[in-house]
Amino acid sequence: MTMKHQDAFEQIAFGTVDMLPEGEMLARLAAAQRDNRPLRIKLGMDPTAPDLHLGAYVLLHKARQFQDLGHRLLFVIGDFTAMIGDPTGKSVTRKALSREEVVANAATYRPQVFKILDPERTEVMFNSEWLGALRPEELIQIAACYTVARMLERDDFNKRYSANQPIAIHEFLYPLLQGYDSVAIKADVELGGTDQRFNLLVGRELQREYGQKPQLVLTMPILEGLDGVQKMSKSLGNFIAVEDPPAEMFGKIMSISDFLMWRYYALLSRVPAVEQTRLQKEAASGARNPRDIKLDLAGELVRRFHGTAAAQEAHIAFLARFQRHETPEDLPLQAIKLSEAPRLSQLLVQVHLAASTSEAMRKMKEGAVRVDWRRVVDPATILALDAVYLLQFGKRHFARVALQKGE
Amino acid sequence: MTMKHQDAFEQIAFGTVDMLPEGEMLARLAAAQRDNRPLRIKLGMDPTAPDLHLGAYVLLHKARQFQDLGHRLLFVIGDFTAMIGDPTGKSVTRKALSREEVVANAATYRPQVFKILDPERTEVMFNSEWLGALRPEELIQIAACYTVARMLERDDFNKRYSANQPIAIHEFLYPLLQGYDSVAIKADVELGGTDQRFNLLVGRELQREYGQKPQLVLTMPILEGLDGVQKMSKSLGNFIAVEDPPAEMFGKIMSISDFLMWRYYALLSRVPAVEQTRLQKEAASGARNPRDIKLDLAGELVRRFHGTAAAQEAHIAFLARFQRHETPEDLPLQAIKLSEAPRLSQLLVQVHLAASTSEAMRKMKEGAVRVDWRRVVDPATILALDAVYLLQFGKRHFARVALQKGE
Repeated sequence: MTMKHQDAFEQIAFGTVDMLPEGEMLARLAAAQRDNRPLRIKLGMDPTAPDLHLGAYVLLHKARQFQDLGHRLLFVIGDFTAMIGDPTGKSVTRKALSREEVVANAATYRPQVFKILDPERTEVMFNSEWLGALRPEELIQIAACYTVARMLERDDFNKRYSANQPIAIHEFLYPLLQGYDSVAIKADVELGGTDQRFNLLVGRELQREYGQKPQLVLTMPILEGLDGVQKMSKSLGNFIAVEDPPAEMFGKIMSISDFLMWRYYALLSRVPAVEQTRLQKEAASGARNPRDIKLDLAGELVRRFHGTAAAQEAHIAFLARFQRHETPEDLPLQAIKLSEAPRLSQLLVQVHLAASTSEAMRKMKEGAVRVDWRRVVDPATILALDAVYLLQFGKRHFARVALQKGE
Repeated sequence: MTMKHQDAFEQIAFGTVDMLPEGEMLARLAAAQRDNRPLRIKLGMDPTAPDLHLGAYVLLHKARQFQDLGHRLLFVIGDFTAMIGDPTGKSVTRKALSREEVVANAATYRPQVFKILDPERTEVMFNSEWLGALRPEELIQIAACYTVARMLERDDFNKRYSANQPIAIHEFLYPLLQGYDSVAIKADVELGGTDQRFNLLVGRELQREYGQKPQLVLTMPILEGLDGVQKMSKSLGNFIAVEDPPAEMFGKIMSISDFLMWRYYALLSRVPAVEQTRLQKEAASGARNPRDIKLDLAGELVRRFHGTAAAQEAHIAFLARFQRHETPEDLPLQAIKLSEAPRLSQLLVQVHLAASTSEAMRKMKEGAVRVDWRRVVDPATILALDAVYLLQFGKRHFARVALQKGE
C-alpha cells in the first residue's frame, strides 16, 4: 500500500521542477486515496491563441497522469483574465483580448485538449463565471489580500519598475484574480509552467485568506523548441503544432537532437520513467540506435494527435524520404567560403534551393523559408559567417551549410 | 462685465493654495457665465466620522462661494470609498468602515453641511450609486488608467514603500475610484484640501481617459487647530466641533491667537476679502482692538451654526466671564519652580484646579483635562520643564503656568 503511494508519487514527481511546499505531495496523494476523495487538480490556460503547440501539452500530459491515478482535473479557461492579459514575463503592458477573440480561441481548445485528457475526469470551466460575477467590493477585498511590495518582488515586474517601464495598476490584479480562481474552485493542487510559479503561489495566499487549505503548487519546465535552446513558441517558429499534418509532425520530431529527445520523452511521452531510464542506458551502451528510439517517440506523439493509421503512414513516408536522403539530419554539410556575410536570398540560390534571388525573396515573404527551424521573412536578412545553418526552402527542401570566412 | 468676472475670480481665488492648471479658472468662470451654464463643482467627503469640525467647513465655505456665483455643488458622500479607507497621509493600511458605520455617519452629514450650503444649488450624492454598480471588467479598466510607478510617487505611498511598510494593493484603487467619481458626475471643478491634491489630479487623468474635459483642481489649506500649529483634528483634541454648544464655540474662538484669527477669517468668514484687508490694517495701526475683531468672528461663526439668538447670548456670557477674568487669555501666568518635571496630576493640585491627585487622575480619565487644548488622559503624564502651559480642568477652569527649573 505504501509502495503504491510511492509509485504514484514518483510518477507525479517525474519531470517536475517544483512541488511546493516540499514534501507535502506524497502525504496528500496518500490521504486522497485513504479517504477516497480525489484531489481537485487545477490547470489554467489563457485562450490567447487559437491553437496549441506541444509546449502547452507538457502540462496536459502531467494532468493526465493525475487523472490516471483517479484525480479530477479542473481545466480553467481564463476567458475573464485574458481580457486583462497575463503580464507574466512581459516587458510591456500586454494588449487585452477582445471578448470575441477570447470566445473564438476558447472554442478551439476543447477538441485539442481532449486528445490528452480523460473526459470522464475533466471539468472545463470559464473563469468569467465567477470573476465576471464579482461585486466591486469583492474585487477590492481580493486586492486587499496582497501588498504592492510583494507584487513588485516578482521578477518581471521588478525589472520593469527598475527600468522605469510603466506597469499599469490592473496588471497587479492579474495574479490576484488567477489566484482567486483557486479559491472559487477549491483547488487542491495547481499545475503550471515555471514561469507561473509566482502566480500559483499567490493562489495559496488567497486560499489561506479565504479560509481554505492552500493548494500544492507543481511546476513543469518550459519545453524547448526544435532548436533545443529557445522555448517553444509560435513567434519563434520553432514549434510543433498540434494541428501540424502527421508527416510534418513526424519529420519535426525526427529532426531534434538526441539530447532534446530525452527531454521530450520525459515531458511528453507516456513511456514509464523506469522504461525511459532503460532506453537511455541502451542508447549509451550502443545496444540500441538512438534513431530507433526517436522513431518510437515520433510514432507515439503522432499517434496521439492523429491516430494509429496516420502515424504508421507518416512513419513509412519518413523512412522512404530517409532512404532518398531527404531528411535534414542526413544532408551532407556543405562548406562555403565567402569574403563577407551573405544575404540569405543569395545563399539560397548558391546552394540550389532557389532558382533566383527573386524566387528566394518571394518564398521568404510567403513564410516558406526557415533557418535553423525559424521562419525568416525579411528579404534583407544577412547570415553571419563562421556558423553552421540548416536551411529549409518550402516543406521538403533542405541544405546544411557551414559558412566560412575566405575567398 | 470683464470686471465682474475678475471680482468673481478673486473671491474664488481668496485663501486657495492651488488652482490647477494655472490660469484656467478665470476663463472657465467667464465661459460659464457667457454660456449660462453653471459649473459642476465637486466636493467629496468620506463619512468617516459622525460629526464635522471647522476644518471640514473650509471646503464647504469655498463651495458656498461658488454657489453664490450661481454654480452647482455636487456633494459626493464617499460611502463606497469609505469601505476601502482613504490611505492619504496614512502610514499604515487604514481600517475599512463597515456598511453600517458608513450609513450612520452619512446620515448625520446632511443637517451639518446645510448650515453652510445653499440647498437649492446642491445635489447630495453617494458614490456607491455608480461605484457599487461597476462590473468587474469596468473596475479593471479604471485600474488600467494609471501606473504603479506614478502611484508610488505619491508622497505617503513613497514613504511607506521606502520604509518597507506594507501598502495593500487595494489602497491604489482608492485614488482611482475617487477620480472615477469625477467621471461619473462630469465635474468641472473639484475642491479639496491640499492633502487631496494628488487624488484630485488623478480625477483629471481619468476624465481625460474617458473622453471628458478634465476638471480644474482647487485646493484649500488644512485648517490649524486651536493651538495654531497642528491641523485641527478630533484625535488631537484641538478642534471646534459644529456641535459644540454656543458658549463653548464662542470661547474657543476667543482663545485663539491673533495670527490664527486672520487665518480663520480668510478660510471661514463671509466678510469680503477687501474688508478683511482693511481690518488687518486697522488692527496693525491700533485703530481697532484685535479683541473686538475676534468677537465679530466668534459672533459670525456661532450665528451660522446656532442662530442669532444663541450667538448674542454666547457673546454676553463671554463678556461676563471676561469681566470676572475667567477666560484663559486673561489668566495671570503663574511661574512655578520645580526640581524636576512634574506629573500633570500633581501640578493640577498645586495650582488648585484639583482637590487631590486622585480627583485629578479621575478627571483625566474622564477626558476632562486638557493641556494647551489637547485632551490628556494618561494619569502618568509628565510635563517638561522650561515651558508655558494652559491647563484646563473641566469646562470652565483654567490655569496658565510657566514651569521653571529651580528649588
